[in-house]
Amino acid sequence: MNNRYCVIMCGGVGSRFWPYSRTDLPKQFIDFFGTGRSLLQMSYDRIQGIVPKENILLVTNRRYAKLIHEQLPDVSDDQILYEPARRNTAPCIAWAAYHINAKNPNAKIMVAPSDHLILKEDEYRRCILRGFDFIENRDVLLTLGIEPNRPETGYGYIQVGDECEGTVKKVKTFTEKPDLELAKVFISTGEFMWNSGMFLWPVKSILAAMRQHASVITDIFETDISAFATDRENEYIESVFPSCPNISIDFAVMEKAPNVYVECVEFGWSDLGTWGALYDNSLKNSEGNVTQKCKALLFNSTDNIIAMKSDKLVVASGLHDYIVADADDVLLIVPKAEEQKIRLYVNEVKLNYGDEYL
Amino acid sequence: MNNRYCVIMCGGVGSRFWPYSRTDLPKQFIDFFGTGRSLLQMSYDRIQGIVPKENILLVTNRRYAKLIHEQLPDVSDDQILYEPARRNTAPCIAWAAYHINAKNPNAKIMVAPSDHLILKEDEYRRCILRGFDFIENRDVLLTLGIEPNRPETGYGYIQVGDECEGTVKKVKTFTEKPDLELAKVFISTGEFMWNSGMFLWPVKSILAAMRQHASVITDIFETDISAFATDRENEYIESVFPSCPNISIDFAVMEKAPNVYVECVEFGWSDLGTWGALYDNSLKNSEGNVTQKCKALLFNSTDNIIAMKSDKLVVASGLHDYIVADADDVLLIVPKAEEQKIRLYVNEVKLNYGDEYL
Repeated sequence: MNNRYCVIMCGGVGSRFWPYSRTDLPKQFIDFFGTGRSLLQMSYDRIQGIVPKENILLVTNRRYAKLIHEQLPDVSDDQILYEPARRNTAPCIAWAAYHINAKNPNAKIMVAPSDHLILKEDEYRRCILRGFDFIENRDVLLTLGIEPNRPETGYGYIQVGDECEGTVKKVKTFTEKPDLELAKVFISTGEFMWNSGMFLWPVKSILAAMRQHASVITDIFETDISAFATDRENEYIESVFPSCPNISIDFAVMEKAPNVYVECVEFGWSDLGTWGALYDNSLKNSEGNVTQKCKALLFNSTDNIIAMKSDKLVVASGLHDYIVADADDVLLIVPKAEEQKIRLYVNEVKLNYGDEYL
Repeated sequence: MNNRYCVIMCGGVGSRFWPYSRTDLPKQFIDFFGTGRSLLQMSYDRIQGIVPKENILLVTNRRYAKLIHEQLPDVSDDQILYEPARRNTAPCIAWAAYHINAKNPNAKIMVAPSDHLILKEDEYRRCILRGFDFIENRDVLLTLGIEPNRPETGYGYIQVGDECEGTVKKVKTFTEKPDLELAKVFISTGEFMWNSGMFLWPVKSILAAMRQHASVITDIFETDISAFATDRENEYIESVFPSCPNISIDFAVMEKAPNVYVECVEFGWSDLGTWGALYDNSLKNSEGNVTQKCKALLFNSTDNIIAMKSDKLVVASGLHDYIVADADDVLLIVPKAEEQKIRLYVNEVKLNYGDEYL
């Protein structure tokens, strides 16, 4: 177990969850379900006992240092990697891998997002343990794939091949988010899983794969590889990290590497990437409405998600399939079907009003 | 001119304008158009020079004393009649008439609501002066009727007869708010005016008409008629006023009296009774949207009125013909077509949550 590491990525801004998720309080820090624990805290809690506490690393932005220390008082500052710039998942994962490799070249790493919902924690822990077993003596990149239950267009998909060992299958292709027609085809073939963005790999394997398929990134990090896990590391990262390309690990490595496997899992997962995902995972009343932190009087209104940051009274009529989200200084009212456009709307907000509302 | 009096009714709560109009700050006290003057202040301003300042009376509720003194510092406390209970317009007008009659039995009274919009003030003043002239030596009840420009279902209508003198015609009938079909018939006949709720009459005439058609009210006020305009008046009113029936002047007197006339006027009037009326009277952008006190980014959204009390950012998509009104602790989202139902919704709020949000 001492070779096991977990990298929790918690530097995102969750822009599709705007205006709840804001630059100063992204969604991973929010107690979305009123359970008393934020999504990040739940992510941290659920790997306890699988990975030693001191082998848990968080990769984030320095602006969230205070939030992290408040929410995870057990985590010391040397467990947190502060990215000097936002560069998507590939540079984030690369840094964590170099850092861990300098400490323990036999490390087996689990990479986990901090803003997902997992309903069946016991099953989750069994899956993670099986995953660590699978990668123990192999040169492989393992991803967790979720059995799809609907033609979701908000997720990437993984096509699996025939070759398999237990619940693990060889990956044929990684695909981008499909449109609805294609998503339906994916589902009908039975060959596609949702890409959960959770990975397990030996540190040696991910570094080798990166050197082969994303050398633009490894070249940057290997300018002075001796700096990792020393007191020069932060200064070094400050100087080299910003020159990394903005690229996802899927695009940089997973779509290209030949030794990619998927563990097919089913533990009540949602990436909670969108209001619609939150809607799907929340308790609905008899009219299909979900309300969060508000008193609501809804007339002739169905299948809405209505969320207020303050404990506000909402009176609505004639609303169907809408997202209504109020965050004190911002009010968002859009059809649920347009949730993927919220990012565009947030861009418009930035163009028109600068960073004030982000 | 010294016989002229004006009674401004400003005790209403404007529930159709909820949640902007609240029990603690009804719409007449709000600067709706950002001009720097509230609707009450504008009502007061526009009769200056027509009625002596000291002959202007305000009828209201004691909870608004502070607001009135702040907004109208020229008005002294003995010009304000504080109703001990809310009893609609007939008892309100009756009290003012008895009060004025005790001071000046030759008084000619104009009764004005405090929450209407009048765009052409010069024309308004000419109409009021013509009205005072008409009632000077007659035993009549004169109402101001507005030439209708659409089959509005939110107003009462007045049917006029042939007999006329200048712009004044004899009234045939007062009617309640019609449904849309009936309103269209009213418009097509050319015989109907909108009932503005503004009246002019000799104090003798309104008291005589009340004694004849609403004796249940005059009997109450005449328990001790010597109390009016003395230092016993307030105590007297406290004891007798609450036993008055809750009834409008239209229903109690105007629909029944034979000597009712209407002056046909056109001075850019709206009763601003509803969000729709405010929408109609506000500047629209090219998509027909009206926004008040907010920054708005509206996508695929037309013909809405969006009003925020704080200077809030609103991002909306796919909204057509809606009222979106945010008042810090309350958010209202209803189709414009349902504006007449807002009162019902407010009742539901009261039933569910008590007075907190009224």
